[in-house]
Amino acid sequence: MKSLGPIPNGFGLIDGELAIAGVKASDHVRAAGDTPLFLYDFGLVRARVARFRAAMPADVHLHYAVKANPFPGLVRALARLVDGLDAASLGECRLIAASGGDPARASFAGPAKRDDELAGAIAMGVAINLESESEADRALAAADRLSVRPRLAVRVNPPFEIKGSGMRMGGGAKPFGVDAERAGALARRVIAAGAEWRGWHVFAGSQALAAGAVADAQAAAVALAGELSDEAGAAPPLVNLGGGFGIPYSANDRPLDVEAIGARLGEALAARASGLADSRFALELGRWLVGEAGVYLTRIVDRKESRGKLFLACDGGLHHQLAATGNLGQVVRRNYPVAIATRMGSPAEEVASIVGPLCTPLDRLADEVAVPAAHPGDLVAVFLAGAYGLTASPQAFLSQRPAIERLLVPD
Amino acid sequence: MKSLGPIPNGFGLIDGELAIAGVKASDHVRAAGDTPLFLYDFGLVRARVARFRAAMPADVHLHYAVKANPFPGLVRALARLVDGLDAASLGECRLIAASGGDPARASFAGPAKRDDELAGAIAMGVAINLESESEADRALAAADRLSVRPRLAVRVNPPFEIKGSGMRMGGGAKPFGVDAERAGALARRVIAAGAEWRGWHVFAGSQALAAGAVADAQAAAVALAGELSDEAGAAPPLVNLGGGFGIPYSANDRPLDVEAIGARLGEALAARASGLADSRFALELGRWLVGEAGVYLTRIVDRKESRGKLFLACDGGLHHQLAATGNLGQVVRRNYPVAIATRMGSPAEEVASIVGPLCTPLDRLADEVAVPAAHPGDLVAVFLAGAYGLTASPQAFLSQRPAIERLLVPD
Repeated sequence: MKSLGPIPNGFGLIDGELAIAGVKASDHVRAAGDTPLFLYDFGLVRARVARFRAAMPADVHLHYAVKANPFPGLVRALARLVDGLDAASLGECRLIAASGGDPARASFAGPAKRDDELAGAIAMGVAINLESESEADRALAAADRLSVRPRLAVRVNPPFEIKGSGMRMGGGAKPFGVDAERAGALARRVIAAGAEWRGWHVFAGSQALAAGAVADAQAAAVALAGELSDEAGAAPPLVNLGGGFGIPYSANDRPLDVEAIGARLGEALAARASGLADSRFALELGRWLVGEAGVYLTRIVDRKESRGKLFLACDGGLHHQLAATGNLGQVVRRNYPVAIATRMGSPAEEVASIVGPLCTPLDRLADEVAVPAAHPGDLVAVFLAGAYGLTASPQAFLSQRPAIERLLVPD
Repeated sequence: MKSLGPIPNGFGLIDGELAIAGVKASDHVRAAGDTPLFLYDFGLVRARVARFRAAMPADVHLHYAVKANPFPGLVRALARLVDGLDAASLGECRLIAASGGDPARASFAGPAKRDDELAGAIAMGVAINLESESEADRALAAADRLSVRPRLAVRVNPPFEIKGSGMRMGGGAKPFGVDAERAGALARRVIAAGAEWRGWHVFAGSQALAAGAVADAQAAAVALAGELSDEAGAAPPLVNLGGGFGIPYSANDRPLDVEAIGARLGEALAARASGLADSRFALELGRWLVGEAGVYLTRIVDRKESRGKLFLACDGGLHHQLAATGNLGQVVRRNYPVAIATRMGSPAEEVASIVGPLCTPLDRLADEVAVPAAHPGDLVAVFLAGAYGLTASPQAFLSQRPAIERLLVPD
């Protein structure tokens, strides 16, 4: 038997069933008409935003990294709550504009922006986070062709990373950003070329759960921004300190102590270089804001035994929840939090593997976990489905039915 | 520096450029209008079909496993060349019918077929490869509701697997098929219930490169089909021996000796049980038929150095070629064959990592490989893109531009 990840707070129990935003899972499925179904509880997202505001220094802005979940309803609702939206493609820039987000408070990062993508974003007024010197040249040329003044920031590849983060985004040689050693000179150059200077973007890691490591990296980023601004000879209107706030996926993970990070960030900002006195600071969060608000519901279609092992085969799986099956770059497969949604009130009675409909052994939502006795018709809930879920999965694989997505907005 | 996988045969060189189906890569891109671009050379698929026919005993049929690549033009062209098409979803059954494939020569396998999917396939006349006793009951009930006689086969979880195969699909406890120990009894039951008996489906592994191991598993499957047919008390019209034929992806892989497999299969069929005397045998191939025929072309957008390492950043990547980045369930990342398509005639001069446009360190098409000096505008070719490419990738990730797909059909 293997352990399951921790079910996040914020869900309820009604008549022995998992309740999401106060409604039973089976009623959600009835209303949506079918499974598989993604539900995003915006009440939980709002609570996250409120927790961020309470924990962080008052002058730290909150940005949403659209890539975590670009579901249009969610982006539209978040655009009204956060201070900026960050894009990783021209498609996301367009989504931001279509969702009522202010392009003037949006940015566009990404290591291979094409000329047409740079031109599209610049024409919209989105700030470009420059990833290289040659991208700077191409952005200036694109703006020149459009006869507009581009809004440019420099993405910095810092000489440090968030220790223990799930993905290393900084430190050493990286395809992301301009090495810190050269970033000041590049800023000086784009300012001299007439660009509207937007400041720095420092992204040092993602999916980190150790508050101390996040705080250390943020303090280092604040100090680095001060040094770079001296080199650039200009104060940055905005310093985007990146994100990296993780959520607990597997049994040994512990939630991030955001309040500790806020306290440490307050100290770092109080001690900041004088050149940053009038700068805004922002954190760009995706997973931490929306990940725990999402639940993926799939229906058990078959219950079968094979050589002493029990399998519950569902109508949803890897094609909608690649990361939950352990196949999105993970080295070791660990079970996410998964439950029999229609039997949440019942004790675990047997050990089963929960698999999807695809003809591949990779399609496994839970491996040998203890669950209540479940049968065809029961619903399985995969938690932590709000970030890097549907769009980070191979939806066309095996030509399965598409997933349904619903945003739940409590009054 | 790390090694690259072997470039498959069948590609040419024109004016120092990679030629696909006799046309330069850059001309293909011009004709398609943009990158990223998937090209499928049907001439190479035809050659594979011819090689199969020459290598295999004359009475062994060739089926195409649509899941490997469901591009409609490719399925339509293959439907005219092969003896049957195999589906892994109702969506693929519909695609087969829409592509001119004969539903009466199609089958549908998959461990979680819903009632509506079973009914849809049965109504089309597609044979159902039953994965469990309870699925048999549901299939019979669905046929009863439709007042049609269902065409049923039993997928068998054999007590063996193809040794050394890339994915274990048989042996031990599995979500796929009915344990061989119970398969005969299930066949007897569905025949007694009035179903049209279609025979056995034995799938023992995939992506195998050792001919001896494939031949051993095929011989074991032929013997197993004989025993099960005795238990079932009925001769199987068809014995689908599965697939498992692999292609070489990384530097140490060697091509599969298909001719050796054909010779061994001939011996196994000559020695088959008398109950199988009138049975047809089929192999269900996907990857081996179409994998090497596909090339993914993406354009270099940026060339950048970071702390002594060179990166070539492209407009295509993980969202179209997940497996090539090492992130579709692979435990160890190995480079696929990748080349600078526009400089194929030039010697390697420098070591670079070829990365995609996504803001994640996972998006790497080639890690520290020796390449000719390449610059923005050059095209990168990722080979082996014909199977488990686009549809096995998270196409919506980061809202990047969609890939273009083209089938090249030589006269």
